[in-house]
This record gives sequence, C-alpha cells and structure tokens, in this order.
Amino acid sequence: MRLHAQHQPIALMRADCHVCRSEGLSSRSQVLITADDRQVQALLYQIDSEMLAQDEVALSEDAWDALGIADGAVVQVRHPPVLESLAGVRQRIYGRRLGQEDMVAIVGDVVRGRYTDVHLSAFLTATATLPLSIDETIFLTRAMVDVGDRLSWEAPIVVDKHCVGGLPGNRTTPLVVAIAAANGLVMPKTSSRAITSPAGTADTMEMLAPVDLGIEQLQHVVRTEGGCVAWGGAMHLSPADDIFVRVERELDIDTEGQLIASVLSKKIAAGATHVVIDIPIGPTAKIRSREAAERLAAHLTETASHFGLALRCLYTDGSQPVGRGIGPALEARDVLAVLRNEPARPQDLRERAARVAGAVLELGGAALAGQGEALALQTLDSGRAWEKFARICAAQGGLREPPQAAHIEPLVALQAGRVVHIDNRKLSRLAKLAGAPERPAAGVSLRARLGEEISRGQPWLFLHAQTRGEMAYALEYARHAGDIITIEA
Amino acid sequence: MRLHAQHQPIALMRADCHVCRSEGLSSRSQVLITADDRQVQALLYQIDSEMLAQDEVALSEDAWDALGIADGAVVQVRHPPVLESLAGVRQRIYGRRLGQEDMVAIVGDVVRGRYTDVHLSAFLTATATLPLSIDETIFLTRAMVDVGDRLSWEAPIVVDKHCVGGLPGNRTTPLVVAIAAANGLVMPKTSSRAITSPAGTADTMEMLAPVDLGIEQLQHVVRTEGGCVAWGGAMHLSPADDIFVRVERELDIDTEGQLIASVLSKKIAAGATHVVIDIPIGPTAKIRSREAAERLAAHLTETASHFGLALRCLYTDGSQPVGRGIGPALEARDVLAVLRNEPARPQDLRERAARVAGAVLELGGAALAGQGEALALQTLDSGRAWEKFARICAAQGGLREPPQAAHIEPLVALQAGRVVHIDNRKLSRLAKLAGAPERPAAGVSLRARLGEEISRGQPWLFLHAQTRGEMAYALEYARHAGDIITIEA
Repeated sequence: MRLHAQHQPIALMRADCHVCRSEGLSSRSQVLITADDRQVQALLYQIDSEMLAQDEVALSEDAWDALGIADGAVVQVRHPPVLESLAGVRQRIYGRRLGQEDMVAIVGDVVRGRYTDVHLSAFLTATATLPLSIDETIFLTRAMVDVGDRLSWEAPIVVDKHCVGGLPGNRTTPLVVAIAAANGLVMPKTSSRAITSPAGTADTMEMLAPVDLGIEQLQHVVRTEGGCVAWGGAMHLSPADDIFVRVERELDIDTEGQLIASVLSKKIAAGATHVVIDIPIGPTAKIRSREAAERLAAHLTETASHFGLALRCLYTDGSQPVGRGIGPALEARDVLAVLRNEPARPQDLRERAARVAGAVLELGGAALAGQGEALALQTLDSGRAWEKFARICAAQGGLREPPQAAHIEPLVALQAGRVVHIDNRKLSRLAKLAGAPERPAAGVSLRARLGEEISRGQPWLFLHAQTRGEMAYALEYARHAGDIITIEA
Repeated sequence: MRLHAQHQPIALMRADCHVCRSEGLSSRSQVLITADDRQVQALLYQIDSEMLAQDEVALSEDAWDALGIADGAVVQVRHPPVLESLAGVRQRIYGRRLGQEDMVAIVGDVVRGRYTDVHLSAFLTATATLPLSIDETIFLTRAMVDVGDRLSWEAPIVVDKHCVGGLPGNRTTPLVVAIAAANGLVMPKTSSRAITSPAGTADTMEMLAPVDLGIEQLQHVVRTEGGCVAWGGAMHLSPADDIFVRVERELDIDTEGQLIASVLSKKIAAGATHVVIDIPIGPTAKIRSREAAERLAAHLTETASHFGLALRCLYTDGSQPVGRGIGPALEARDVLAVLRNEPARPQDLRERAARVAGAVLELGGAALAGQGEALALQTLDSGRAWEKFARICAAQGGLREPPQAAHIEPLVALQAGRVVHIDNRKLSRLAKLAGAPERPAAGVSLRARLGEEISRGQPWLFLHAQTRGEMAYALEYARHAGDIITIEA
C-alpha cells in the first residue's frame, strides 16, 4: 500500500500486532524500520482494522523509497535510537547559539527522517524568534550542503541565478540561460517544480523539452551547450531544504536566516561560483520594501563570501505578474515569444530577462560593467539566444511545442477605468483552480497591466482549462473572490 | 476503521477519490469533515490502495469522537476555513506579545483540532524562546479555562493539590484527600492516568475503587463524603492542556509559563479555591535547584492571585522515589499500608502525605498555622483517615483490594556498600517494561533508600510481572541499563 505524505515517512500497523505489543510501540511514536542494510525512521500510526494483516506494515512513499523495497518485502520494526541532536534544538529554544557540530547533527538527522513535524517546527521557530546569527547561518548552510550531493564542473566560472519569493509568470530563467550560454558562460541550471504555485520553472521548461535528466546527461548537455534547464528534484542537492521549506510553508513564515541558507546551499551544491539574486519588491511579494531588500542583500552577500561565492543582488518590480501566462504551457509560450522576437512578445518579460542576464554576463566576465543588459538584448534581437535555446532543448531530448487548452473563457471588465492594483495571490489561486500545474495547458492569460486604461466589456484575462469542471471551478472563484484586479473609474 | 493517533484527528482517503480530485485536496493537508451539525478538522493522508473503497474515509479515534458517528455514516470533506488565529502565532514568533483576544482565538482553534503539529510546536517554541510574560500567562490560563467545562461546588472553600513533575511512587493524593475530608474540608480531586509514567494517580486509585465517575456521581460523592479521587479525563477540564502536554513531551521541553498555565487552568476549571503545590527538588526531578523552585513558586503565586486562587508551595525532597511500589497495584498497596497503619508502611510516603495534607489543612482553615502536619498525622494514627477513605471508595462504587502479580523476581546487590544514588528515570522505565500501567499488578517494589547500607546478595528491588515475556524484558533491561542504583563500597 502506498501512502502519500509529502516527504514524511509513515508506517501503519495494527494495534494488536505482535511486534507493537512485544516492543511496546505506541501510536504516533517514531519507529525504526530496517530492510536488509537500509533503514528509515517513520511515524507510526496504529489502526484497529482488518485492512492490514496481523503483522503487516503499510508505508508512505518516502519510507518505501528510503528502504528501496517492493510490496511483500520483510522489514523489522523497533524503537529508534535516542535522537541526540535534539539536545541542540532544545538548547537553541532556550537561547543558546548553535555551533558547526550542532548544525551538522541536526541537519543530518533531519535528512535521515528522524525529526517529526514537532521537532522540525521547533527548530525553525526557535531560529525565527531568536534569529540565526551570521555565524549560525554559515554553519547551517555548510551543514545543508555537506549532507547532500554536490555537482562539479570543469569551468572556473559557473553562473547561476535565483529569484527570491517568486512572482507569477516570472519565467526569466530559460531566457537567462540561453543568453548566458550564447555568450560563452557555463550555466547548469537546476530548477524546481511547483509546490504551491501554478508552475515551477521545471514545469514550464518541460513544455519545451524533457527536464528529468540524469546526472550524466546533464553533464553532457552542459559540456556541449554551456547551459541547461533541468529538474533538480532527483539530484539530492541540499535535501534538508525541501524538508524545511515544507514546514515553513505550513507555518507561512519565512525567516531571513533560513532563506539565506536555503538559497545558498542549493547554489553551492549545484557547483555555482557566481550568482545573481533577483529580489522583487512589491505589496504582495515576499519582500515588501527597499530597506528589507537591502538588508537581505547585505546578509546574503556576507554569508556567500564565506563560501567563495560571488553574489550580485538586483532589486526589481514585484507589484504585478510578469508576462501574460500563468501556468506551465502559457508561460512557455511567453518564453518562446520573447526568444523568437514575435511582435506580440511580452515586453516586461523580455526586459526583466535582459536585466537579470545582463547582471549574469557582467558578473561572469562576459560583459564589461554597465554593458551586460545591452549585450543581453542584442543576443535576443540577433536570434542567437533562440538558436542556443533550441540547441539546449535538442540536447535535453528534443524541442517541442507547448500544448493548447481545450477550453478558453474570457473575464471581462464590468466597468471602464484604470488598473490600479493586481492581486498576485488571487491570480495564482485562479490559475490553480483552472488546473495548473497538474494540467499543463491550464492556467490564466492576463491582458491587463498596472496603469493601463480598460473599457467596459473588455476581456482582461482568459481562463484556460482542460475540463469543463475545472473551468466551472475557476469561474466560480472569479465571481466570488472579490477584486482580482482593481479598476478605478 | 479506527486509527489511534493520540488526540490528533486524522483522515485517510484514496488519492483517486472523487472528492479529493474535485476539491483539489492534497495529502498531508488539513480538511474539514462534517457530519450532520458536527464537524472536525483533520489531517488528510491519501493512499493508493484497495484498502478503502473509492469514496470512503477512514478516521482516527479523535475524529470519530468529535463527529459522534458510527461506522458507515456519511460525511462531507472539504477545505477548512482559513486559520485566522495563526496570524497571532506568526506575530509571536517574531516577538510581538499576545493579548487576551489572541490567546482566546489560538486556544479555541487548538481545541477544535485545527492546529497541526507544526502549528502547535511553533506556538510552544515561540513562547519558550521568548518566555511568556506574566500577563501572557494570565491570558493563556484564562483562555484555557474558558474553552473547557468548569465544575462548581457549593462550598466557599474548595481545596486541591498538585505535584510538579512527579516522582515515581509519590502517591500522596489519596492520603491527602482522606485526611482533608476527614477534617471537614471539601476536596473534589480529579486526577490523570499515566501517559509516559508507570502509573498516574487515577491508575493507582482505580486499584482501590472505580474512578471513571460521571459528573453527577462525582458531585454526589463529594456532597456526602467531602472528597473524591476520580479520573478527570472524561470531564473536558482545560482540554487544550492535554494537547499542549503531548507536544511538549515530544520536544522534551517544559517552560515555566506553559507549566503555570497548565497547572492553574486545570485547578481553576475543577473549581478549586485553595491549592497546595508540591515541588520536589532533585537531580533527576523536573526542578533541580532551590532557586528554580522559588522562582517558579513566585510566578505561580502571582498568576494564581489574578484568579482569586490562594496558593501555597512546598519544597520537598525529589532525590529518590517515594514509598516502595512503582506501578498501579504496588503503589495502591503502599497507600493502604499507610492508611491502615501497618507496621511495614513506607514511612517516607506517610511523612510526605502528612506534610502536604498539613499545608492543605492550614490553607483551607481546618488547622492553625504550624499545626496542620500534626493534625494530619493524628488523623492517620487515629484511623479517621482510613475510615474516611473507605467511605469515599464505597461512594465511588466499592472499596477493593489491589491485584497481585503472577511473577516476582528479585534483583540482588552484586557488592556490599552504601546506596549513594537512585536513578528515577531508569526505575520508571524498568516498571514500564515489566508491564505497568497496562498490566496493573506489574511494576517494581524498591527496597533500597539513599544512604542505607546494603550487603552483597541482598535483594534491593522486586520485579512484578503478569507474563514471563514481560519479566524477561525487564530483567534484560536491568542487566544492560547500567547503574539503576549506585552502591559505594
């Protein structure tokens, strides 16, 4: 039986099973499960039911994967060893700073699945209430890098980029990789799939080429083309990060120290040496003021320097979505339109990509200071970026066209006026209700920009859905969600 | 199907069920389950299995109980409403103090089962890293009282007692109730069952009389006899406390503010007006120094005064177990031996009970200052305490004799010398491995006291077990646990 539990190893056993009784295992306690030479620690729930045979164990996906076993395999279940690293968490709760060894022990046990939600939340909360010091952030970052795998590249300079918090539709990554690689830089980009958003960079890229590359294929693509856009999920780079992020999302908190450790550990593990950080600032973005952005940038840069990582932070407009599409296929169309210099290409996406790519080119030594953005635009205009992108896609397994949704419905303005506000969160929710990212063709195509005049009856958004049911859900939400965009007469 | 999950409402559904798909429910998210007019919020896990029918839901015990439904009932499952009170937790994480309204909202949602382990742990950790202020402790205590039921008594003075942290075998409660009631005080004692210890007061009392009393019967016993020792678990007094305690135990933390709110909310909800707090101090006790005990006492007293609760704290010896028995029946035998003035009665239990009862008598106005302890001893010596206890047991449903274990084995000293240390935690573990509290007759009977001389081969402890298997477990542990008592030549 497979139990879906998002990175949490879980075991179900009957309350009356012999092992539970003789070992004294109780429900909602941690157990150690061993199969041959592999083991995983799991949360045990006991059931009263014939669903399971007397001495049978049901496991969650993560537990199956960690043990590498098949249905019907024999496992041992017993009390786990004492969780020594929890002493560090307890001391941190009471205000004692953590050292390198504490962090190594904590992060190691987290990745081995030995921390429960209660333990994880306590660690993250304690380091939010008494924020991580720069030293602690460095220790945590190093521990997160060391516990996972690490990619290495033959090039002396390896560039990368990251966008803090994310904006709907802000799909600059494929464009930046194409521009950087077209100008001779090495940019092996690993990206994530959507977790709560309507599309992750990997989801969007997958509309254009395969992204689930093995490490060998990844290295081949980068060796021949200088860049790639692959899914990083299978690569075990900073595996603690995924676990921390899940808990932070559940709390809806985001602390600076954890953010820095999260971003830098992924980049260092991916083998980057020069990284551009895009920090969108806006009322519904993660960073809401210039001061907050500058403080974050200063701490990011200081921490990065301890790892020999060169960093450049860009402050960008986070007040509205980027491009038109929100959803894997719709965002991929925006990317293609910019690369192919189509007349209807979204200008804002093109400009943002050029700005980020310009910083990458300068930081990586492919452009003189102040000339990166112009070189980036010229790389797009000349078709060299599109040519490079097509070659990267071919190397990843073949360029393809994004799918088209079966159903498209407009939302029209009920009054004329000027667009004064766009709610990014509601737009994301709408795109997800329409089916994104599970249905790759689904999502929304936004036709309104801040400051634009709009007339009564004018479509300001198109909903794309694969099924009538999902379209109905999205329309229902649009009717009752309050203002998604605000129009002032 | 019943899933055991210790106060956590959980739902299992098939990943491919129609409701999950159309509502967009994902695994490990919270769902709202409604049956008729009752509802509960639960953690959803999705499974791939024929164990459940397509649109069937399996629930944990707490979810069943909250909904009050039977197997086969029809329920609705959907997204829960937004958890507004979490905004308060988030602000507290970042250091803003909480007010009365915040606490009411948080505690209310906790009791409604809307907080996940991640949320609960964050709240408790934030209030440990930046400790609860006295004001916050008062707000939290009040919110915890108000969210549950509250007992009321006709008497103007209602006495109670509490022991902080607990010591193995420290079963003074039945003795104190008997002494207080014999001297005309009203002492309606509600106690808990063991959670991680070898016996709770309710488990021990159950060896002597029924403890699972309804509210009507409880009031009848108290009206006729002045006192009772009943199980408080069914009474919904400060229900948030049980939830917080479970999470604190998982973290193995114990913060002063939470401890104060926990103790006082239970006492206030039980209708007490005058409370004696026994604070054992010792190297393996919860409170390890006189200074820590005095600080706790000062904060307890200040907080209690805001609720019109009169408090008296006693500092007692927490360096070794009290009495001989550890385990429900063995502790009940110690209680009986003291009440019946048997020659082999454990003197330390008698003395501690007299000291606590003396404070209760003085605080409740049944003895002049400085004369309580003497009155308590005299109440025991004269047989009046035993007579009152027998009447209370009869009113609760009938006095009975504790059971005797089927197997008894001695542990003998391997060398002669003086007992210089006793490890309370290892003793508790040993008693549990022998079967306590599930097997009420099981446990240990300790025959060594600190400072006593012991000869080689002398039995210093007797193991009591119901089955050969459990006896073998306990013996195995005793052989490998290192020093349970330390003997110096």
